[in-house]
Amino acid sequence: MSDELWNSPFMRACRLEPAPVTPVWLMRQAGRYMAEYRGVRSKVSFLELCKSPELATEVTVTAAEVLGVDAAILFADILLILEPLGFSLEFSKGEGPVIHNPIRSSADVDRVRPLDDPSPLSYVYEAVRSIRSALRPSLPLIGFAGAPFTLACYAIEGGGSRHYEKAKAFMYNDPGAWNALMEILTDSTARYLNAQIEAGAQVVQIFDSWVGALGPDVYRRFVQPHMKRLFDQIDPQTPTIHFGTDTGALLELQRDAGGTVIGLDWRTDLDQGWARLGDGVGVQGNLDPIALFAPLSEIELQTRRILEQAAGRPGHIFNLGHGILPQTPVDHVRALVQMVHELSQT
Amino acid sequence: MSDELWNSPFMRACRLEPAPVTPVWLMRQAGRYMAEYRGVRSKVSFLELCKSPELATEVTVTAAEVLGVDAAILFADILLILEPLGFSLEFSKGEGPVIHNPIRSSADVDRVRPLDDPSPLSYVYEAVRSIRSALRPSLPLIGFAGAPFTLACYAIEGGGSRHYEKAKAFMYNDPGAWNALMEILTDSTARYLNAQIEAGAQVVQIFDSWVGALGPDVYRRFVQPHMKRLFDQIDPQTPTIHFGTDTGALLELQRDAGGTVIGLDWRTDLDQGWARLGDGVGVQGNLDPIALFAPLSEIELQTRRILEQAAGRPGHIFNLGHGILPQTPVDHVRALVQMVHELSQT
Repeated sequence: MSDELWNSPFMRACRLEPAPVTPVWLMRQAGRYMAEYRGVRSKVSFLELCKSPELATEVTVTAAEVLGVDAAILFADILLILEPLGFSLEFSKGEGPVIHNPIRSSADVDRVRPLDDPSPLSYVYEAVRSIRSALRPSLPLIGFAGAPFTLACYAIEGGGSRHYEKAKAFMYNDPGAWNALMEILTDSTARYLNAQIEAGAQVVQIFDSWVGALGPDVYRRFVQPHMKRLFDQIDPQTPTIHFGTDTGALLELQRDAGGTVIGLDWRTDLDQGWARLGDGVGVQGNLDPIALFAPLSEIELQTRRILEQAAGRPGHIFNLGHGILPQTPVDHVRALVQMVHELSQT
Repeated sequence: MSDELWNSPFMRACRLEPAPVTPVWLMRQAGRYMAEYRGVRSKVSFLELCKSPELATEVTVTAAEVLGVDAAILFADILLILEPLGFSLEFSKGEGPVIHNPIRSSADVDRVRPLDDPSPLSYVYEAVRSIRSALRPSLPLIGFAGAPFTLACYAIEGGGSRHYEKAKAFMYNDPGAWNALMEILTDSTARYLNAQIEAGAQVVQIFDSWVGALGPDVYRRFVQPHMKRLFDQIDPQTPTIHFGTDTGALLELQRDAGGTVIGLDWRTDLDQGWARLGDGVGVQGNLDPIALFAPLSEIELQTRRILEQAAGRPGHIFNLGHGILPQTPVDHVRALVQMVHELSQT
């Protein structure tokens, strides 16, 4: 890694070292709220965009440049890994992702093919290489994957869900098949992330977006061992961001599973969350994405509050608590990035 | 109130007095998972059922008897109050509630009619009277209403929502209109609840189902003052249950707003939540409704855990963390009620 990359504010924060400004990036920063992205998407489907290293590079780099953020994140989707595992994946308009052959029984789990060879996803690693070479040399690139629980929810529900009742029912009624599925997802995800790292990602984020649907004891029994196994398999030189939403009651358990930096959503006060997490980990967050629909004065008030709670403690990466929504005003997003830099300057 | 009602386990728990068993009831205990309910609903629409005191009595009393729970809850819907306020409300099949004239501007707020005279909802009070006289004299009857924030979300979004972005954007962009709307909803809800109490409800529950979408500081600024005003207006002789989901970070703020008993969902360990709430309030909860899809052994494990966390402290009302889902096996619900009684017997 070059010196300028190593010493960038984002990489310093990932190592819990002081930085001249609080680094900021935004989940789904390359997305539908941005005209440049909609321009690309008007020509190709979402899946075609994910599978084109050239176009994925274009939207990734453009978003990072337009916003002036401190890290780029690979353009991809957490569900891409499900295809080589044997799932038939479609992104239907309006409805979101659909898995046409969801898991219904332990026999379905037996048919899931572990990603022993990560090459079916080589278009992703190709995108990582291409983005890395197109980015400013000092700008870190984040790779990512879905966490096993969140992937299992999609694989069992067959798409998005409000209550995850099929996934939880499966987990309770056939813990053996659940654990078998979680192990396949865990080991496959580890290989996938390591291949992204090898291709040029400096940091990886693991999205356990739906794990906040679980209480602490259920997380401990059905998810945490797999998350430990996942973090144990990731290249130890590479910082990892452990993200979830609605995880206010799970933070200590998530920290114990692994991650250099733990994601906090806006429901948890950052100072309290970080105090509970203790020394030794950074935090990422935690503005409500919907605060970006507010006037700039309100955005500034909430941003100041978050930075005051972080209190300059090394290891804070500013972000939203979840992804940017499609109707978000792009000028508010740009203003947020500026505010974070100006207000955090030391 | 008769002695047997006053001394029932549920009423004792509401006063934080010891009871011979932990009282249990279940949100949406009269609902689609139950054959008797589906039988009634096959003949009338949801709104017709709500507006028929006779049928509302039938489903309310049947559910309480079939399950052997320690309290009945009025069959109604939190959105009924929106009709006399001037909203056009429809429960469409599959889609859930739809409000055909949602609030889009402050001018729309000006058109909302406060419920100065609670008589447009007299079918609800009639149902309360009818249920009260049909119930076993020792079985308490719970009345209820939606909390202003949750009602405002529906009124602004025009129905259910995933992110509440319209409601939050309205709140941030026009706090004056937001507060005007919240005041109307607050005062109307207080009148509505007091009329239910006058008609024969022993306890009222306030459903702030969606308030967990807010962080603590935003709750404090935009919601808490209205909740205080609401609790201040409710008949002080009547215990109140203050319910929300996803409120792990809001518990102290909710307690300070009001409520004899605070609802906890399954994301918060009951012992930790109650410790934070301190003396002087009871807690209600907190089994994950989806645990009812698990084998009985798992339901028992989770039930024991909750009762162990409550540790016999007076003021625990056993419940789910949210309503029973339509596909829930009714025999598991009955088994849960029995378990709570058997495991908590002193």
